[in-house]
Amino acid sequence: METIKERILREGRSGEGGILKVDGIMSHQVDTNFIMDVAKEFVQRFQDCEIDKVITIEASGIPPALMVAHLLGVPMIYAKKKQPDTMSNALTVEVFSYTRNEPSIVSLSRDYLHKGDKVLFIDDFLANGNAAGGIMYLVEQAGAELVGMGFIIEKAFQPGGDYLRGKGIRVESLAKIDALDEYETKSI
Amino acid sequence: METIKERILREGRSGEGGILKVDGIMSHQVDTNFIMDVAKEFVQRFQDCEIDKVITIEASGIPPALMVAHLLGVPMIYAKKKQPDTMSNALTVEVFSYTRNEPSIVSLSRDYLHKGDKVLFIDDFLANGNAAGGIMYLVEQAGAELVGMGFIIEKAFQPGGDYLRGKGIRVESLAKIDALDEYETKSI
Repeated sequence: METIKERILREGRSGEGGILKVDGIMSHQVDTNFIMDVAKEFVQRFQDCEIDKVITIEASGIPPALMVAHLLGVPMIYAKKKQPDTMSNALTVEVFSYTRNEPSIVSLSRDYLHKGDKVLFIDDFLANGNAAGGIMYLVEQAGAELVGMGFIIEKAFQPGGDYLRGKGIRVESLAKIDALDEYETKSI
Repeated sequence: METIKERILREGRSGEGGILKVDGIMSHQVDTNFIMDVAKEFVQRFQDCEIDKVITIEASGIPPALMVAHLLGVPMIYAKKKQPDTMSNALTVEVFSYTRNEPSIVSLSRDYLHKGDKVLFIDDFLANGNAAGGIMYLVEQAGAELVGMGFIIEKAFQPGGDYLRGKGIRVESLAKIDALDEYETKSI
């Protein structure tokens, strides 16, 4: 059976500005079998943790986070990338998006994240770690406990992984990319 | 067993401007069991159709669309609410969002929607039908065939349902809301 790493290597395309495009399996079109394989792998890696909720950020984190939550039988929460105008009891944080090259607000309601909740963060990519850092802050503000963070793809040549691990966070990445250049070469 | 309608009636809260808030089960926190029940119901209602792909729009349409695609064993595509700067072979349409009170660009790549593809559109809400109308246009531009549209909640007091059915589209809504006022009363 083709592994998760092999599939990413086969499907991935490098784009301008160090972007890895995996639009055919997860970032635009979603291969549901691939995402289910990803979710099973996350569940196995975090099987020693008690997990009350899975958290992610809209939109590309939703497919893997939803499947992980479904397998665990717990709710999934997705933080919003906007001002929380209609959200009750909102917690917010500003994060800088390198993809969009601008700061954006990430918001989450206290109604769904409570003191003591054990939370697993799942996202598609780990690059600079800004979004993940924002979530760490929101989880802390809610008094909840971050048990770990799982990423489908970690760009190991960007500082997010070191930053999160340096903070003592347990980080699991299913595929680590060491380099990405304009010539479609990459190693995992 | 509590039906989908009963669950929506129990969880829904009316907000300002005719917004129905179902943040606890699908719009912010996602109850994965509820979404799986929703997906099974859609699969049953469209069981007479051949479906090659499920399509939705980010972000709140992704959970039900993903689960429907997973049950059908087909890919899911989510249209993006942004200019397609890094998207190849993009198709775009401008739709007016009443929630955000501004027009926005919805984009989709021809790489994942082909001539003759039989497509099922799944979304969380049907209100004015603008997003659905935009998807109809994109699917037509790609030369694909729209076999139907499924919505978890249809606001029957807004014109989207009549508009889509008037165009000959098969529309299935799991819960129809006839009225929504500031006093938390609604009928389904």
